[in-house]
Amino acid sequence: MAKIKISELEQTIHQLLHAAGLNEDNASIATEVFMRATLRGVGHHDVYDLPGRLEGLSKGKIKANPEMVLIHKYAALENYEGDNGLGELGGMFIMKRAQQLADEHGIGLCAIRNSNHLLSSTPYLEQPAEEGYISYIITRGAPTMGAPGRKEKVIGTSPMGYAIPTNRDYPIMFDACLAYASNGVLSDKTRAGEEVPSHWGLDVDGKPTTSPGLISKGTRLPIGGHKGFGLTLFGEVITGILAEGQIIDEPQPGSGLVGIPSHTAICIKAGGLLGQREFTHKTTEILERMEARASGLQIPGQHSYQRKAKLLSEETIDLTANLLDKLNEWAQKFNLKTLE
Amino acid sequence: MAKIKISELEQTIHQLLHAAGLNEDNASIATEVFMRATLRGVGHHDVYDLPGRLEGLSKGKIKANPEMVLIHKYAALENYEGDNGLGELGGMFIMKRAQQLADEHGIGLCAIRNSNHLLSSTPYLEQPAEEGYISYIITRGAPTMGAPGRKEKVIGTSPMGYAIPTNRDYPIMFDACLAYASNGVLSDKTRAGEEVPSHWGLDVDGKPTTSPGLISKGTRLPIGGHKGFGLTLFGEVITGILAEGQIIDEPQPGSGLVGIPSHTAICIKAGGLLGQREFTHKTTEILERMEARASGLQIPGQHSYQRKAKLLSEETIDLTANLLDKLNEWAQKFNLKTLE
Repeated sequence: MAKIKISELEQTIHQLLHAAGLNEDNASIATEVFMRATLRGVGHHDVYDLPGRLEGLSKGKIKANPEMVLIHKYAALENYEGDNGLGELGGMFIMKRAQQLADEHGIGLCAIRNSNHLLSSTPYLEQPAEEGYISYIITRGAPTMGAPGRKEKVIGTSPMGYAIPTNRDYPIMFDACLAYASNGVLSDKTRAGEEVPSHWGLDVDGKPTTSPGLISKGTRLPIGGHKGFGLTLFGEVITGILAEGQIIDEPQPGSGLVGIPSHTAICIKAGGLLGQREFTHKTTEILERMEARASGLQIPGQHSYQRKAKLLSEETIDLTANLLDKLNEWAQKFNLKTLE
Repeated sequence: MAKIKISELEQTIHQLLHAAGLNEDNASIATEVFMRATLRGVGHHDVYDLPGRLEGLSKGKIKANPEMVLIHKYAALENYEGDNGLGELGGMFIMKRAQQLADEHGIGLCAIRNSNHLLSSTPYLEQPAEEGYISYIITRGAPTMGAPGRKEKVIGTSPMGYAIPTNRDYPIMFDACLAYASNGVLSDKTRAGEEVPSHWGLDVDGKPTTSPGLISKGTRLPIGGHKGFGLTLFGEVITGILAEGQIIDEPQPGSGLVGIPSHTAICIKAGGLLGQREFTHKTTEILERMEARASGLQIPGQHSYQRKAKLLSEETIDLTANLLDKLNEWAQKFNLKTLE
């Protein structure tokens, strides 16, 4: 592990993205997303994905400065063509629009098609929550999950997240897919030689297994069986269809690719009805009432906030030597200062 | 079991509700809810709850003709005082308002506080789906569920449902709470002497158990651990807080009662963006694409539709002798014709 100054990491990310073709504004937006993702301190779906993004940008697989064009609008509903742009830009764009629609209508929904991977949900949620919105974002992708008891992969996992303002230092914040386990969790467990609960998934023959490796090769299952399946199906509709993008295994016209991401953001003006002060007073009271019943209860978003606060106070972050090498290779390619 | 003509059952429900104090309009609305619930053919959260409602109405515990008054409005967001009214009336009221708000804004959210039990989600969802809306309803109640690994009951189970229009005879329709098992399922399993998966809940000492009876006495757990917990918490915020009602274990002012239901309905004008015809074309294509990958896949809402179609074609429904006795007792009390 190498200890890197957070301010220097931020500068480097910005310079790399700019060098890879993003204009100043877009580089700033995408850097904010990468930094918010990285400061969660989880070590995946963050700066570790940056080398892959740079690769995609340099090969022309992802557009650095997409032109996001309105397809349709109906009052508080809007959808956009994502122009094969960087997912980080698409995600921030629709969340900002959903926020503006919520200002006007109390609630706003903005969807985007033909986008790309956007890391995780939280980077898009934090700022709207800080500004007084209930924020929600959901993504669709390739069918990689089964239905209850079925080994066939029929649908994506609807990765989603929300944030809700409170009076604490952190919002209530949630980020998860609707399979029992993300692919990342299965890989981690496989590497660690651990077993997982047998309801998490099936092997290639459709039999329940406690081996995370066999589930990775087989089929992941939705949380709570038909319950998670039903919730995921809802996600596929409000992303794939409302964005007018692809659904299930539908190939993208032209490229023929399957699993092209669409994202949908929804914002609610949190204090629109009862007022902002009363709203955060009540969300905080929800947490207090639950904690009074179960001392030390873990609140969604709390751990990630604590890790972030620690990183920010130390002003440094540990990155693997492998990541550092990759980032520095790109820096050298672009004639930029390397990280040390 | 007694075989009852469906048309007679409907008439009887209407007469009983009217006799119990509901005016003609309200009796019609509540009857529609009871009939839609009953025709799901599941035998709970339907006409089997009617004797309890009549009891509550006659003792003045529930208002037959509540005055639902607007508390606050912000464009597409509205919340209402439920006036301790019949939950069936509150549920239909907010869904209708959410639909009207969606006409104007594309998406609408309407919440109600100080309501009562509303049977299940589906009776409120079917009609908006038939009329071209994505409909969603969620309810909060007393804290009866734990958090991951915690035996303390910290939150309700956020019973919710949605319906999405398709080109089939049935909408995609979902109705579930976010605990692995409802209390009803646990009772059924206990009666049948069956075991349940050990991740469904904890006994009174906080230990995992496969006994549905011990979970009933202990603590039910949310689907997918922290995932279901996070989703439930979201539900508590958009029902309890947006309705300006009670949260977690907060007592209702005056009565001191805990667990008073608030409900929230959200409607989206399904064809607002891509047009209604294209929308249902795509939702149907989602189902077809999934079924092509997994032949015979069970679609949410399909079984319940099939049961309903069967009941309607037979024009009769089987009710337990016990229910029939109870309904007839009420009919006699009100000097109405009994069911035979």
